[in-house]
Amino acid sequence: MSAPEAERLARVGLSLLTEPGDPRVAAVVGEVGAQALYANVLQQRADRPSREIRDDAASRTGGKDPAGELADAARAGLRFVVPGDTEWPDQLDDLAHVPVLQQRGGPPLGLWVKGPLRLDALARSVAVVGSRSATTYGADAAAELAAVVARAGCPVVSGAAFGIDQAAHRGALGGGGQTVAVLACGADRIYPQAHRDLLEHLAREGAVVSETAPGGAPMRIRFLSRNRIIAALTSGTVLVEAAVRSGALNTANWASRLQRPLMGVPGPITSAPSQGVHQLLRAGAATLVTSGAEVLEVVAPMGEHVVEEPRGRERSRDRLSTKDQQVLDAVPVQRSVGTDSIARTAGLAMLTVASALDRLRAGGFVERVEDGWRLAALAHE
Amino acid sequence: MSAPEAERLARVGLSLLTEPGDPRVAAVVGEVGAQALYANVLQQRADRPSREIRDDAASRTGGKDPAGELADAARAGLRFVVPGDTEWPDQLDDLAHVPVLQQRGGPPLGLWVKGPLRLDALARSVAVVGSRSATTYGADAAAELAAVVARAGCPVVSGAAFGIDQAAHRGALGGGGQTVAVLACGADRIYPQAHRDLLEHLAREGAVVSETAPGGAPMRIRFLSRNRIIAALTSGTVLVEAAVRSGALNTANWASRLQRPLMGVPGPITSAPSQGVHQLLRAGAATLVTSGAEVLEVVAPMGEHVVEEPRGRERSRDRLSTKDQQVLDAVPVQRSVGTDSIARTAGLAMLTVASALDRLRAGGFVERVEDGWRLAALAHE
Repeated sequence: MSAPEAERLARVGLSLLTEPGDPRVAAVVGEVGAQALYANVLQQRADRPSREIRDDAASRTGGKDPAGELADAARAGLRFVVPGDTEWPDQLDDLAHVPVLQQRGGPPLGLWVKGPLRLDALARSVAVVGSRSATTYGADAAAELAAVVARAGCPVVSGAAFGIDQAAHRGALGGGGQTVAVLACGADRIYPQAHRDLLEHLAREGAVVSETAPGGAPMRIRFLSRNRIIAALTSGTVLVEAAVRSGALNTANWASRLQRPLMGVPGPITSAPSQGVHQLLRAGAATLVTSGAEVLEVVAPMGEHVVEEPRGRERSRDRLSTKDQQVLDAVPVQRSVGTDSIARTAGLAMLTVASALDRLRAGGFVERVEDGWRLAALAHE
Repeated sequence: MSAPEAERLARVGLSLLTEPGDPRVAAVVGEVGAQALYANVLQQRADRPSREIRDDAASRTGGKDPAGELADAARAGLRFVVPGDTEWPDQLDDLAHVPVLQQRGGPPLGLWVKGPLRLDALARSVAVVGSRSATTYGADAAAELAAVVARAGCPVVSGAAFGIDQAAHRGALGGGGQTVAVLACGADRIYPQAHRDLLEHLAREGAVVSETAPGGAPMRIRFLSRNRIIAALTSGTVLVEAAVRSGALNTANWASRLQRPLMGVPGPITSAPSQGVHQLLRAGAATLVTSGAEVLEVVAPMGEHVVEEPRGRERSRDRLSTKDQQVLDAVPVQRSVGTDSIARTAGLAMLTVASALDRLRAGGFVERVEDGWRLAALAHE
């Protein structure tokens, strides 16, 4: 199923004329529809051909009309997915119901997509985000989590920045899973340049996505808009490393507003890139996770992924009586000793100790040797 | 104020004849009093002089009577603090109201103490505990936390083991504060031997404390008993590193039972010694703390220690309008550019950009140069 062509073109037109994430645009589109708003904008331009407005529009569109822009984009391998398309990820509509943050908000007009992965396959995706200035610890943690999550069939979504973003994609690809980059600039652009290979790989095998029209520059405000798309596309956000004022906290904030599970990976308290995560954990805003399995447990439908808590080996000595444990504790680790010595150490009568040693020998905890008793292999661990 | 001498002697007698933390002893003492129980035990021994009981008693007491033991202890610099003494730390009485754990429980009969620090000064103390096999990260974190806590006038309480215990004492001493070691063996013993200097230092300047009678050996079961004393003496317990089956989790468990605040210091998810802490944090059993100040905030009376959350520098750019920010973002970092180029990058009309640049120049964000505009120092951070 596809949205009507007029609807798509109106959204392309608005995408060319407005800034991504402008909450006024989303609000009016929500109220009167994209076609009505686009018609109004065109009418305004015709009615008030002031130089400033003409310039603004010309600067934005580069003089292109929506159909021409769409055709150009298609030639560059991009499609514009809008509400009404089968591929439209319905979860984005939740953005209509949450308050504006840093003057950004609302569902996007559509998403420009490059790559074979369909956006409607992202219902169970997981965002793995964090600091550009990640530590090797953080990058490794992100890659490992992303690998486990992607291997379990949950696509990973992140930005395309250095640090955690890059590590998340690397991990997901290494895990043989699917991964998606959401950009602040146009989906046809390579930013940062150093990630050309990564972005080209994602455009071939996964998807590169942006709300910004093709050719759009990666501006600061567009990162704020982009972050809400990452949070809204996914069924949960994992924050791996984020300094106190990291942009990743903005994504985390969007996840919370959207009531999507927000998870945080702890790190050393001495590590500045973990401070922002620790703050969220302390505030109770995020759940502490230490593995991909724990992430899956949070985002997956109930009971599908239940993590078995790691636990120490069940020591058979725990099944001993208190008195037998007391006697066992009195047998030294490195040498053999007599019953009298064990009795003195344990503070028990020799007869009591003798019976206990018998039981402990039967249980394989101690061995009788020439000059007394010593620990058997089992008790050594 | 002192407890009556007969009461003290009865408790010494029971301390010599029973295992520390035996919940039956605590229960009967709670019901009929120490003197009645001690009289009954002596009567039993007289009535049933079986060889085993005689041996048990002789082995425990080494043949000493309570008064003789007390005199010997005093010569070794130890006192036996019991309920009724002014020095008795009332918070230990809470142990009467919590369930038994691993067959240990109840308030102690008394505490053997070596050192000038009075136990009634521990009402606002903080336990800092963790793994013997600590990492340098964990040890440094423990020392730093303990230093801050001790410097604020809250004595630090720990064991005397390698790893976190040792680091906590070192930190508290380095912070110029008071610190207390609670031992599983007699307070007159040096265990582990490598900590002779530390224990002697604490006995001179702080306190070395034990529920186990002087001379008693450090047995496994006594560590379990000892852990409840650490948790009960203090107004909160900080767990720094603890592997999944660390003994420190037993102390944490006691703190929870006693409804004392339990805090956990996170660490790398790749670090086995942090796994146990992360589990407690995930379970919601402990509060995540990253600094001594945060610990004080948890244990101190309301409002006395309020931690100011670290935050990034307030960037003055946050006070700019969206459009001005958009223009500022379009000014490149390393070179100067013309208004036309900025307008293209920002996707705005040149007139709009020109007005914004004027405002940005007034705010000190950009500078006019020969060939256009460049970022002023302020905008660089």
